[in-house]
Amino acid sequence: MVIVGGGFGGLYAARSLARADVNVTVVDRKNHHTFQPLLYQVATAGLNPSDIAVPIRRILRGDANIDVLLAEVASIHAAERRVTFTDGGELSYDFLILATGATHSYFAHPEWAKVAPGLKTIEDALEMRKRIFFAFEAAEREDDAERRREWLTFVIVGAGPTGVELAGALAEIAHKTLARDFRHIDSTEARILLFEGSPHVLGTYPEALRHKALRALEALGVEVRLGAHVSQIDDAGLTVGDEHIPARTVLWAAGVAASPLARSLGVALDRSGRVLVERDLSIPGRPEVYVIGDAASVTQDGAPVPGVARAAIDAGVHAAANIQRRLAGKATLPFHYTNRGSLATIGRGAAIADLGRVKLSGFVAWLAWLFIHILFLIGFRNRLAVVLQWAFAYITFDRGARLITGELPRATVKVVASPASLPEARPGDTPTPARGLLPKESVGL
Amino acid sequence: MVIVGGGFGGLYAARSLARADVNVTVVDRKNHHTFQPLLYQVATAGLNPSDIAVPIRRILRGDANIDVLLAEVASIHAAERRVTFTDGGELSYDFLILATGATHSYFAHPEWAKVAPGLKTIEDALEMRKRIFFAFEAAEREDDAERRREWLTFVIVGAGPTGVELAGALAEIAHKTLARDFRHIDSTEARILLFEGSPHVLGTYPEALRHKALRALEALGVEVRLGAHVSQIDDAGLTVGDEHIPARTVLWAAGVAASPLARSLGVALDRSGRVLVERDLSIPGRPEVYVIGDAASVTQDGAPVPGVARAAIDAGVHAAANIQRRLAGKATLPFHYTNRGSLATIGRGAAIADLGRVKLSGFVAWLAWLFIHILFLIGFRNRLAVVLQWAFAYITFDRGARLITGELPRATVKVVASPASLPEARPGDTPTPARGLLPKESVGL
Repeated sequence: MVIVGGGFGGLYAARSLARADVNVTVVDRKNHHTFQPLLYQVATAGLNPSDIAVPIRRILRGDANIDVLLAEVASIHAAERRVTFTDGGELSYDFLILATGATHSYFAHPEWAKVAPGLKTIEDALEMRKRIFFAFEAAEREDDAERRREWLTFVIVGAGPTGVELAGALAEIAHKTLARDFRHIDSTEARILLFEGSPHVLGTYPEALRHKALRALEALGVEVRLGAHVSQIDDAGLTVGDEHIPARTVLWAAGVAASPLARSLGVALDRSGRVLVERDLSIPGRPEVYVIGDAASVTQDGAPVPGVARAAIDAGVHAAANIQRRLAGKATLPFHYTNRGSLATIGRGAAIADLGRVKLSGFVAWLAWLFIHILFLIGFRNRLAVVLQWAFAYITFDRGARLITGELPRATVKVVASPASLPEARPGDTPTPARGLLPKESVGL
Repeated sequence: MVIVGGGFGGLYAARSLARADVNVTVVDRKNHHTFQPLLYQVATAGLNPSDIAVPIRRILRGDANIDVLLAEVASIHAAERRVTFTDGGELSYDFLILATGATHSYFAHPEWAKVAPGLKTIEDALEMRKRIFFAFEAAEREDDAERRREWLTFVIVGAGPTGVELAGALAEIAHKTLARDFRHIDSTEARILLFEGSPHVLGTYPEALRHKALRALEALGVEVRLGAHVSQIDDAGLTVGDEHIPARTVLWAAGVAASPLARSLGVALDRSGRVLVERDLSIPGRPEVYVIGDAASVTQDGAPVPGVARAAIDAGVHAAANIQRRLAGKATLPFHYTNRGSLATIGRGAAIADLGRVKLSGFVAWLAWLFIHILFLIGFRNRLAVVLQWAFAYITFDRGARLITGELPRATVKVVASPASLPEARPGDTPTPARGLLPKESVGL
């Protein structure tokens, strides 16, 4: 049988079948599993990519009946029970678990993808990291006060968990990590704006916790704008309602849509592109095909099962169990998701936790968040590295991974000219005014 | 004054001027200093990029008279005492230290750069890492025995310190790290070939140590070919003398040339493009311009000062001191390099050390190498992270950072098709023969 996707759902489905009498092939277009809940830490230089990404092959190497294949699935041919790859290969299956997760959705504006990157892969995180830290570098070189302000304005669209985490981390970077690094700008003057279309941050949480999260964000210096609908984003900034906000760095944490592969199944999808699965997680008319995690739309007690790691894991385990029941000639069982609670972190030492009857906020919630995330990190080595890096970052405010790698944003600040190095100048009185500049032209990101 | 380059030479020159009565601007096209002696550890997934790269701004943030600028210098206009940037800006100077280091040289074959990447930057290291680990993935998918052998043949050109280190690490990856990860290939069958044009590995070391290094490499399973001249490299492999060796992964550790920026100084260069500096490290006719490190050609007692970190550091400190002497109205002093010894590592627990009268090899030399490299790593946090990762890797043979990120090599193995997932098949008898394949076409990297 074939599992497409090595995320939480796919991996746990595979592990559930580890000692079963089946041959399993896990196909993923990346060679690594990505611990998505901590991607924002890579985007904000708190963690290294390999702290939160482990080769899928490494995770499954002890399971002799499981094969791992680095390949991108182009299409599912359900009638013929095979999948084809973008590079021309194919693989046939008797059972299929589709666990391809979600990608960003820019609603009807795919052109925003370039100017407002989202956060789903390690590459996405490194792109965000590059833009965030390059913006400070560009501001340092910029003499025009208005353009400097544009480089020091960071906008996050979407105040779900990812948006809130990004905003909190950005505030810490601007106010603490970089506070002593620059000479011509004051990084603490950076503005961090968080736009949310709904009336709430962290909308899935109870009112009291949402309120605490909002106050925690504001305490960090994040400007939160609720009920704000973005109508335009480009190199120069974004438009919200009637207001244009000049900003060089816009990060997208709003829309999510199921991976487009689900479409090739030829069954009904919801409006986010997720497969409307049967109660046993198989698809209508094809009991050998299961869809789990963010690629599936499951309704339970009138509410959608949330797109969180825990739900994907449970679904993966359940789909694997149903396949084994079918192989044993038994009837499949309906899936039931048990919400064990949810946690969101806001910044240094602040979080909220909704654990059913118990609701936590502040430092205690943050410790719970820390504990659970470290507990779930796959691979002992990573867990240790992450604990140490967090401990170090917590004490020193430092973020060790703030490298700008790869191609620099194409158009950079155009001009610097300065006699800033005359020996008679007096050192020590920083931050000095920005270096002399010959304004030539404004540039985009 | 302006320092171009944030490598060892530039950084130590800047630090030497930290409390002096001058304003210093350090210009680098990267935002980070790269600890080049450990780049091969990133290329072979032993360390993370941020373990060996630290933002230059972070290193110098305590020095109020030092400014850091992220910009690429396009040209030096020595007559006008200014440097221009590729993005159009410029900076004037009273004193200039050029510390731009070296880049790969493919001799008269620039077209080899694409098929045989070298190792000078973090990006280079990530490209090597991608190619190395992708080759095993491609071999796993390849059914044709000959093509599989091509993917499992790794060639390193050049047996200086970098080539030897890469060969040793690759041997460990193939024989230990990945030994249990694959189902259809046996990673321990991978061939690691090390080609060297001269008659020796590590030619700058004394005969006895060279011999020990050669034996250590052979003990690791590396095939060393000395006096081997490469005449052709392409996607399919390389030609050495009359022999064509099919190989998908060729890594370049041979030629080095000074950064091309030195040419714009308009003074005499040696045949590697290095500036022939005066005895005080300034350039002929321009006492305000100093060239240090791998960008400079310095001869001492009839032999060239080696292109190692220690020599660049000493030259940086010396150039800074000479500038201060000139500012104080004193005559400059000639540079003298004191060789404190050299170390090269070969693999797990093996190294050679030439410390003048004391010559070490084996585990003792490796411990010395480890100690010195950790001691010199800039930034406490990195030092701790590196120690822990090495300790962990040493015990487990694991290499945590083996992520394949970015674009996959364009042409991958074309075909996979398999009924490999029938439930009646028996698990447990791995490695199984390669999966069924429909041969279509051969592909390049």
